Amino acid sequence: MAKPLVFEKPLGVRDYLPGEVRWKKEVERRIGSCLELWGYQEIITPALEYFDTIGGCSNILQHRLYKLIDRNGKTLVLRPDMTTPIARVVASLLKDEPLPMRLCYNTSIYRMQEKDAGKDAEFFQSGVELIGSDEPYADAEVVALAAEALKAAGLDNFKIAIGETSFLDSFLNEKAPAYVSELKQILIKQDYVGWSEYVKSLSIDEETRKSLLTLPKLQGDRSMIAKARTLVKNEKAINALIYLDQVWDILENYDVSKYMHIDFTTLRGQDYYTGMIFEVYAPPVGFPICGGGRYNDLISEFGRKAPAVGFGIWVERLIEALSMEDQASDTYLLLFNQEQQAELQAAIEQAKLWRQQGYKVEVIGCAKADLASVMEARKQNLHYAEVWDYDTWSVKSPASLKGEQ
Amino acid sequence: MAKPLVFEKPLGVRDYLPGEVRWKKEVERRIGSCLELWGYQEIITPALEYFDTIGGCSNILQHRLYKLIDRNGKTLVLRPDMTTPIARVVASLLKDEPLPMRLCYNTSIYRMQEKDAGKDAEFFQSGVELIGSDEPYADAEVVALAAEALKAAGLDNFKIAIGETSFLDSFLNEKAPAYVSELKQILIKQDYVGWSEYVKSLSIDEETRKSLLTLPKLQGDRSMIAKARTLVKNEKAINALIYLDQVWDILENYDVSKYMHIDFTTLRGQDYYTGMIFEVYAPPVGFPICGGGRYNDLISEFGRKAPAVGFGIWVERLIEALSMEDQASDTYLLLFNQEQQAELQAAIEQAKLWRQQGYKVEVIGCAKADLASVMEARKQNLHYAEVWDYDTWSVKSPASLKGEQ
Repeated sequence: MAKPLVFEKPLGVRDYLPGEVRWKKEVERRIGSCLELWGYQEIITPALEYFDTIGGCSNILQHRLYKLIDRNGKTLVLRPDMTTPIARVVASLLKDEPLPMRLCYNTSIYRMQEKDAGKDAEFFQSGVELIGSDEPYADAEVVALAAEALKAAGLDNFKIAIGETSFLDSFLNEKAPAYVSELKQILIKQDYVGWSEYVKSLSIDEETRKSLLTLPKLQGDRSMIAKARTLVKNEKAINALIYLDQVWDILENYDVSKYMHIDFTTLRGQDYYTGMIFEVYAPPVGFPICGGGRYNDLISEFGRKAPAVGFGIWVERLIEALSMEDQASDTYLLLFNQEQQAELQAAIEQAKLWRQQGYKVEVIGCAKADLASVMEARKQNLHYAEVWDYDTWSVKSPASLKGEQ
Repeated sequence: MAKPLVFEKPLGVRDYLPGEVRWKKEVERRIGSCLELWGYQEIITPALEYFDTIGGCSNILQHRLYKLIDRNGKTLVLRPDMTTPIARVVASLLKDEPLPMRLCYNTSIYRMQEKDAGKDAEFFQSGVELIGSDEPYADAEVVALAAEALKAAGLDNFKIAIGETSFLDSFLNEKAPAYVSELKQILIKQDYVGWSEYVKSLSIDEETRKSLLTLPKLQGDRSMIAKARTLVKNEKAINALIYLDQVWDILENYDVSKYMHIDFTTLRGQDYYTGMIFEVYAPPVGFPICGGGRYNDLISEFGRKAPAVGFGIWVERLIEALSMEDQASDTYLLLFNQEQQAELQAAIEQAKLWRQQGYKVEVIGCAKADLASVMEARKQNLHYAEVWDYDTWSVKSPASLKGEQ
């Protein structure tokens, strides 16, 4: 170990100190309890997958995959999302389990970042997949559960933007079949000025141009579904809108329609979405804190026919939206003079007793001369609930402080 | 997504289904609560680190590192242990925090496997690092806490093998300075037959040979420390034994010496250990379920002088030792006829009410004709606490089942 070590961390990854970890775990606990109440069961899949298995899940994510080579020369990737690994499990290990099936996860996801992209290369997601139903009640449950989980975590100010992949595809293919992928790229970037400019540059008839320019303006309440209906003629687009209207109907029962607004330009980075799609926004966070939608074909790529719908919550973004404040640790500190064997024994006994009563107790030995300075350093930065040295801890205790003695 | 997807997972990694995840989380919760009571605070570091930072932590692990290249051409590794990343944090982000410092973690670790090595390439570890004390009370606390955490998890039948890296090094350097690294390689493999054969093949004097052959036999209670004392002349080895004896003394206060036995051949895969070292074994698991020790020089490699001691528990091995049985899920299932809008609304209302009372409720819609077969499939495999269809759920409820109504 002679060569100098560097302190740096790779681009886009970070350390989480105890104050942050406490919040992260608390938020994940709140979300997890909520998902459990709705009957979702947690699974864990490996961080490493074969590229051939998982790499195909998204053309858009291709250049953001962390790739490595194993001993046998096969290409591995760090999972860039959890939906595809779960699809693999549903079609293999769980292939004999009856559908519908409700699964959830709480894990880290890896996506390589462009320099200064401002996004994390490793981030934490909690999410669900409801597999095996192509009925509107399943779409509605997943959107309602996303709202419920965010509320359980403590969020009350958020908006759910809801779109329809199948409608958008059919609409674009009806209006400008030659330009579908360019138009989608612009929507993914949410570049509405670029959209206008690009549409105006196309050699298409004026009515079609007007329809294309109208699309980004169809943002608002349920009435936007009826307005979108007037823009299209093809049956697939019309059926998608009817389905979305049924989903909205059920969401009224769940009392979450108040958070929702239609946005037909909603698109997500993954290719696998086939129907309803949604993203949740909460000030002041600039990125969606939750995203999901219906994907009816992904699992059949693995050989099991199973329509599905799900969402993922970006835990760090949610924590940012909650703007939680660091709290003092509720740990008690016992100091003993390490020059005295008897004090060490007494400290061990005392700590054991208090831990049995449920108090968090840290024990630190120091030289008698250093006692005051050690105590002083420890009182900074909200480190401890209380600090005692050997002479005072017998008269005070966590219980007496709380008036329990 | 035209190309066929494969189901396989990379060598040495696996999926964890809900029954296993429940146990894993429960075991991690029990360990985490125990570590918290002892004043340890959890931190999270990234899965990806620069090779230059972390790769130097161990010569032995070199060939087991998962390496990849980032956009800037720098080599990254998946963390092969947590001690080195924590050393980095203690010397950088936490450099102004007073010592001693108690940190803990619960995370995944990555080590590439030889084909059929029988070990996991991705595994989960919960552990602690006590940083900033070179007093025996710190070594004793860490060993005692390992025992306490394993007991908290439910384990009662285990043995702690305790050794001394500094003693072993000084002993080998005194006896056979030219063969130290070969002798260590044999001990790491725990190949005692190989040890005998190799020692017999060396051209050394008979007294030295006898000492070397005696070493693996020094396994047993505290009296082995005194026996080892008779084998060595150099001061460093003697001081190491005196220190170990002091640690044992304090472990008597913790009432954990009954789990312990001395084994001076104990060595671990990492190079950074400098003193007391230990491994915990529990039948029927063939590998250690916990390992740790003192490392006084690692953090100063990062520029902060801080002796330290810690351990890590292999969570899957612990679960194997606990031989827990899968339990039925305590989820309730409500079935409704999805051809009836009114039944859907009633199911949503009923589920909401029961969830508010803390019951886990899954709602599934199906055609009336399929009701019986869906119920039957769901009653298999301990999936649910109870299954109701629409007609019966109003008369029964989780509360009435438990006699609370």
